[in-house]
Amino acid sequence: MKYAPVITALLLGGLSSAHAEPLPSWNDTAAKQAIETWVQNATDTDRSTYIPPEKRYVVFDNDGTLWPEAPLTFQLQFAVDEVRRLAPQHPEWKNDPVLGAVLRNDFSAVAASGEKGLIQLLTVTQSNMTTEEFTQRVSHWLDTHKDARFGCRYDQMGYQPMRELLDYLRDNGFKTWIISGGGIDFMRVVAEKMYGIAPEQVVGSFSLSEFSLTDNGTQLRKTMKGVFNNDAAAKPVSIHLFMGQRPVAAFGNSDGDLAMLQYTAANPDYKTFELLVHHTDAAREYAYDSKPPASGKLVEGLTLAEQQGWTVVNMKQDWKTVFDPMLCKAPH
Amino acid sequence: MKYAPVITALLLGGLSSAHAEPLPSWNDTAAKQAIETWVQNATDTDRSTYIPPEKRYVVFDNDGTLWPEAPLTFQLQFAVDEVRRLAPQHPEWKNDPVLGAVLRNDFSAVAASGEKGLIQLLTVTQSNMTTEEFTQRVSHWLDTHKDARFGCRYDQMGYQPMRELLDYLRDNGFKTWIISGGGIDFMRVVAEKMYGIAPEQVVGSFSLSEFSLTDNGTQLRKTMKGVFNNDAAAKPVSIHLFMGQRPVAAFGNSDGDLAMLQYTAANPDYKTFELLVHHTDAAREYAYDSKPPASGKLVEGLTLAEQQGWTVVNMKQDWKTVFDPMLCKAPH
Repeated sequence: MKYAPVITALLLGGLSSAHAEPLPSWNDTAAKQAIETWVQNATDTDRSTYIPPEKRYVVFDNDGTLWPEAPLTFQLQFAVDEVRRLAPQHPEWKNDPVLGAVLRNDFSAVAASGEKGLIQLLTVTQSNMTTEEFTQRVSHWLDTHKDARFGCRYDQMGYQPMRELLDYLRDNGFKTWIISGGGIDFMRVVAEKMYGIAPEQVVGSFSLSEFSLTDNGTQLRKTMKGVFNNDAAAKPVSIHLFMGQRPVAAFGNSDGDLAMLQYTAANPDYKTFELLVHHTDAAREYAYDSKPPASGKLVEGLTLAEQQGWTVVNMKQDWKTVFDPMLCKAPH
Repeated sequence: MKYAPVITALLLGGLSSAHAEPLPSWNDTAAKQAIETWVQNATDTDRSTYIPPEKRYVVFDNDGTLWPEAPLTFQLQFAVDEVRRLAPQHPEWKNDPVLGAVLRNDFSAVAASGEKGLIQLLTVTQSNMTTEEFTQRVSHWLDTHKDARFGCRYDQMGYQPMRELLDYLRDNGFKTWIISGGGIDFMRVVAEKMYGIAPEQVVGSFSLSEFSLTDNGTQLRKTMKGVFNNDAAAKPVSIHLFMGQRPVAAFGNSDGDLAMLQYTAANPDYKTFELLVHHTDAAREYAYDSKPPASGKLVEGLTLAEQQGWTVVNMKQDWKTVFDPMLCKAPH
């Protein structure tokens, strides 16, 4: 065995991370200070606020917290684009209330169809295929579509300050998880590359696949059985089911994240941290709270945050940049 | 920063793990050789069989693979003991076909009640309480009950050769997961201490909890909604759902594990490893295959293993000891 390269890497790694300034895309405002103070308190063995490494589990919402959710969530945009792609093989879709509305770009009619319409959209675009086929379809969609307003690939639109926050937390021994209303199989296609989060730490809405033997192996076929909608009060349920322990920090952006933040804040063992991203930047991204463009209403959350001492990120004031300018140049 | 202790630890750690003989409780038979050969092939960057560290996910069944499943699975034994403990508060249970049979030790009647009876047993002993209360009940049961035949605590009856195998695989960069028919909340109470496996890498049968706010925080209450029975064809489904990728090795002991082994063996990217533990040791543990004591029938598996070149562990011949003699001295 050769130790020299290992030791050199260790020394350089130790030195560089000791000196690199974390969170460079955050302005030096209260939000950044609150994050850094909490991390310092949680990792200092001499303080009563210390959290042992094996308990450092932190959870992030995805849509609106790590990447945009407007004008449609990206997964809904994928579904819409898939309906368009597949429509020539299904002439009958034109006359369907929901699918026809998609094809006519009548999104108010789609929205009016409610959960039933959403389930139908998911059924035709995200079930009845193998898990591998679905991954390929998402990858192909990512390779061939760009966000209409920003002109960027969807998987290059992660919020740069939040990606730095994920890195900063991991550098301090925290295990970063996504707990999102987005589909689990959809998010897992992008999460490792965009956020450095491995598939098993990505939790979302799901339905069950079906296993069978085939002539040359096995297959898992996506179905709509056992649909679990991972939003609001379901988030603590999925955290318990998948992660098996209570988080010490939670990051969200909408009232659908409040149960997750409350569950985290009620951790009986540690001083926890809660944060809400408030979309206040119509120029660089979007500005909304009570009237969101697609999902992500934030009303109760702003009140609760004030009562509970949770950190609210004002995107416009607290972030130097929204996207990584190397990946996605925001309009001026 | 002080580097000397880190470097010393690195050197000593490297040296000790390089020289310690792995799998000391395994006899030097074909099973041990097959394991070691596969691990060497999977971790040698110069070979075509190399598996990169980020793909080294391996899955283990629990009942009958990592600890005994006879005469009842330990979780069923817990349910039986809980019915007895709670019976004084429920005089009506005496007249119930299933619960009355439990109280009369009439296990053939319990078995005859089938899945419906099992669900009833789980409902009265493992639902309608908070997740914390359930953990406490399991811990208390472990502290106050011993296996009738061996006189050992249940959580000291992990198979020593399999515990060494878990360590050996982790030492070689593999992520070890449990994929079991046992209840996910039940197993997570013991898995970290017994096997060194963190809660989020323990997957089992589950039902959904319910979240609510309370006067002084939040609670998750166990229910019987959305029951997912993690056996047979459900195992690849839960592997995809929780782990999000296909394993490179799978370890089981019954026909209920075959789908998991087949799913693993059909991994298109890597040379995988599959192993079945065959219970052949009536003196030190149990001997069964076609007529198991409680669960775990192994019939089709023995045929498939021969056809597919899977490793079959003959407990009597291949293992020097079944339990760790420091924890549980097996009878002679």
